[in-house]
Amino acid sequence: MNWENKVRKVVPYTPGEQPKIGGIIKLNTNENPYPPSPAAKAALEAFDTDEMRLYPAPDASELVDAIAETYGVKSSQVFVGVGSDDVISMAFMTFFNSGEPVLFPDITYSFYDVWADVYRIPYRQIPLTADFRINADDYIQPNGGIIFPNPNAPTGVLESVDTIEKIVKANPDSVVIIDEAYIDFGGTSVLPLTAKYENLLVVQTFSKSRNMAGMRIGFAIGSEKLIKYMNDVKFSVNSYTMNRVTIKCGAAAVRDREYLAQTSGKIIATRETAKKELAKRGFTFPDSMSNFIFAKPSKAPAKTVFEKLKERRIFVRYWDKPVIGDYLRITIGTDDEMNALYRALDEIFEEEGK
Amino acid sequence: MNWENKVRKVVPYTPGEQPKIGGIIKLNTNENPYPPSPAAKAALEAFDTDEMRLYPAPDASELVDAIAETYGVKSSQVFVGVGSDDVISMAFMTFFNSGEPVLFPDITYSFYDVWADVYRIPYRQIPLTADFRINADDYIQPNGGIIFPNPNAPTGVLESVDTIEKIVKANPDSVVIIDEAYIDFGGTSVLPLTAKYENLLVVQTFSKSRNMAGMRIGFAIGSEKLIKYMNDVKFSVNSYTMNRVTIKCGAAAVRDREYLAQTSGKIIATRETAKKELAKRGFTFPDSMSNFIFAKPSKAPAKTVFEKLKERRIFVRYWDKPVIGDYLRITIGTDDEMNALYRALDEIFEEEGK
Repeated sequence: MNWENKVRKVVPYTPGEQPKIGGIIKLNTNENPYPPSPAAKAALEAFDTDEMRLYPAPDASELVDAIAETYGVKSSQVFVGVGSDDVISMAFMTFFNSGEPVLFPDITYSFYDVWADVYRIPYRQIPLTADFRINADDYIQPNGGIIFPNPNAPTGVLESVDTIEKIVKANPDSVVIIDEAYIDFGGTSVLPLTAKYENLLVVQTFSKSRNMAGMRIGFAIGSEKLIKYMNDVKFSVNSYTMNRVTIKCGAAAVRDREYLAQTSGKIIATRETAKKELAKRGFTFPDSMSNFIFAKPSKAPAKTVFEKLKERRIFVRYWDKPVIGDYLRITIGTDDEMNALYRALDEIFEEEGK
Repeated sequence: MNWENKVRKVVPYTPGEQPKIGGIIKLNTNENPYPPSPAAKAALEAFDTDEMRLYPAPDASELVDAIAETYGVKSSQVFVGVGSDDVISMAFMTFFNSGEPVLFPDITYSFYDVWADVYRIPYRQIPLTADFRINADDYIQPNGGIIFPNPNAPTGVLESVDTIEKIVKANPDSVVIIDEAYIDFGGTSVLPLTAKYENLLVVQTFSKSRNMAGMRIGFAIGSEKLIKYMNDVKFSVNSYTMNRVTIKCGAAAVRDREYLAQTSGKIIATRETAKKELAKRGFTFPDSMSNFIFAKPSKAPAKTVFEKLKERRIFVRYWDKPVIGDYLRITIGTDDEMNALYRALDEIFEEEGK
């Protein structure tokens, strides 16, 4: 039996824990603590189950049109997928298709190198500066494409539109992908630049500011040419990815801009308080413009704090790796959840004798 | 601007038309004419929208467990995906990973060569016999893997378990994938063989006999080793593909075996009548064991019949290609829909002077 010789063997990405128990405080996967827009609920309730028997529209046009209207672009400039992971993975396959290395930061979303490996795309990881910034000049070198999140993950650090424009402008021979999963928490989107640069793809998601991680919706906006190429590849892999319920609920939710502003506003306020509360407790962190804080405890090792929080049924994210192993990534929850976190931290540091 | 040099350029698969108008008879994409199980409806109604804010379980365990129980296998032998297209595409990427050509029939599901092209997998198309059968001996030659649907598409022809076992047994060095999208319409599944052959992967779908094309659920059953390899690749591409609503509705629906038996029974009965009615009107066709009939009209060219049916708002599937261009693929609808089809055919052939 030698069939295993022909198998593609990969080391899979390990997602954050999704504990199946109740009564926990879940600050480990950057989910939104607030429920989705009431419009999503209404759309779900209005859904006619009999329609499940029919394939969805392969172009998911109802959802695509709703996104296009919301962001003031043409529908032919919008690509949708099963979460931004699907969108970015498809973008890797579509655009990073040369022998030259794709560039991304050394500390960044942990899926980029996984996708590069699975699609056998060469890549080069560019070190962030000591204060976790992206230096635009580092991205001006021969490459097969560029990608990073803005704000970056897991640091939460936001780069300016100018920094990104400098990189896009200097790389007319590559596609530059900016992953704006966390942009709605106080950042300025580079979406307007897509009108100016044919090679810029901006990816966003419904999983964070849109409160719908459980529905799996991501999207990309770019030039019509970029979107056409992505759709060609997508239709070669799976024509029907967005199911009927998702299309309806997503289209309803994205039109509710007021709800987005309200809930993101609350998260931003809670985050700003969290910065003070964590600093008081001896944490240091790069300034976050996302819905999480990448914070280094000074009173106990990050791993200890992670484990002791878990004992108290408070889940944060920890990676047992060089450099980032000194940090915890703490998602911003409700004020109540964050207050419970601060109390738990006080207890833990007291136990540790600090 | 040379970024386009780095783009993967593919000719996308063109799915069957999904007309956005009402009042049509849709016999073109092999959907089930009956609504999904009432259990799916109940699951949708019970769904708590607030849960949309949380990521789904990455292993979709609720759905995986329900499928495993229904088919009497371990959960570690079940892989789920966004429709069987997602499952098979992932299987191509995982298992067809050598330099040797993958084998599949020349007349078969039109996505296989598309996936092979997009993943740059060499392949060899094996001609069916003149009566659209698969000759097992043709698949006993060096290869990088084997795949075909049983019953085959778009012919509807069923091969025996013995034929398939002969192929699987002769190919211990390759993975053999049997796509059983249409098996519930009277065929005998090779699922029991997965206990005996580590290299056999059986793929099924919720889109046909499970009446849920609009929800996008496919699954594969095989040895634990096969499923582990697939999951490793899947978790490297997108950890969270099955959304919360889909998991709940799918798990509820798959447990309702009685409903499957009832609705499939009705479709089989309608199909057997359709064979008589089409034969009466001069059609010839291989004997179908699926929810469609691949039928060649004798009284007018297939293309003419296709177009004239469309004028009457009856959609069937037609491919303007050699050999299969003489045929129409007609999905089995309700009795009422089929009666409307027969009346329309009578009108058309009268117009054509036959």
